[in-house]
Amino acid sequence: MENFRQIGATTYLCPIPAVVLGCADPEHGQRPNLITIGWAGVVCSKPPMISVSIRKERLSHSIIANTGEFTLNLIGQDLCEAMDFCGVKSGREVDKFAHLGLTAVPAPQLDVAPAIGEAPAFLSCKVKQIIELGSHDLFLAEVKQVSVADRYFLPDGSIDEEAMKLVASVHGKYRAVKEALGFFGFSLASPEVRARRGLKEDK
Amino acid sequence: MENFRQIGATTYLCPIPAVVLGCADPEHGQRPNLITIGWAGVVCSKPPMISVSIRKERLSHSIIANTGEFTLNLIGQDLCEAMDFCGVKSGREVDKFAHLGLTAVPAPQLDVAPAIGEAPAFLSCKVKQIIELGSHDLFLAEVKQVSVADRYFLPDGSIDEEAMKLVASVHGKYRAVKEALGFFGFSLASPEVRARRGLKEDK
Repeated sequence: MENFRQIGATTYLCPIPAVVLGCADPEHGQRPNLITIGWAGVVCSKPPMISVSIRKERLSHSIIANTGEFTLNLIGQDLCEAMDFCGVKSGREVDKFAHLGLTAVPAPQLDVAPAIGEAPAFLSCKVKQIIELGSHDLFLAEVKQVSVADRYFLPDGSIDEEAMKLVASVHGKYRAVKEALGFFGFSLASPEVRARRGLKEDK
Repeated sequence: MENFRQIGATTYLCPIPAVVLGCADPEHGQRPNLITIGWAGVVCSKPPMISVSIRKERLSHSIIANTGEFTLNLIGQDLCEAMDFCGVKSGREVDKFAHLGLTAVPAPQLDVAPAIGEAPAFLSCKVKQIIELGSHDLFLAEVKQVSVADRYFLPDGSIDEEAMKLVASVHGKYRAVKEALGFFGFSLASPEVRARRGLKEDK
């Protein structure tokens, strides 16, 4: 058993997603914008729903509140520095797509919110509800479609997430997500199933 | 730019946290229980708030709804198989703490919900609001205290999350979280600051 030290009331949940939100509001003259989302998560399976939390003062807050839609772009290691940039610079100052050399692509099921053409995958999301919590407003959104880059599909049609070299956020640092340690249900699986699913037992 | 394939509307956000919730309701005869939380996230900085989504039919749903409190335990590689077990077995059938040889420890600021004494860190949480979404109810909770195991503190008082060997959840698989690829703001930092913060530039 561990000895624990208290560090105070803080958002010390980790790892958490490292993702970038895409939005636009051409009706109000807002070009495609990107914002790194520190607080994002899945909240429901049926319907498939995710949440993102955004400060009221952010440009993207008003864009999403107006249009009711956004994309959520997964991030691989090659986009890690671009993701950080999208979290520290405001779209009021810079055209992030142009500055970062990224491509704004249309997102299936959405009208105006762009996705990142270089992302390994992205979710098309429609806002259902906005809840005020304090520093952040919580946007609850339904996932309307998921797009995955061709090259990550294996011959059997499954998706090779390891090849995406995903990035996790851990308390102010971006960390590499690597090899599989297990799969859902592996604690009750037979040695044969564990071996067939590629589990290395020497860890 | 990538070519994308659509895979349908699904909760394809990754990586996401791999954490275990601790709860108990001695007044109603419910011993300490553990449940793996597939859908958890941070939702607000001030006050510090997290969310967990739980199906109504789960034993822990009623326990938390009754008591209004739970712990959220971070998971290192040595607890990965125990975490999987807590997600596939019900507390109605088995005493998970006893079966897994884990220690139920009191959580600061909470009355009844236990933490895992072998976890690298845990959050003490109080429920503020429950929102029905569909398959899952969303519990919004305030973090009241965070406890971190002594051995992860560095001499300067900072915490070495790499040493925790955290586990991420990626679409049905548990994956190792490893080396730092950057830190918040590194895209705008000088070469000197990047070097001082230990960034390896040969990636």
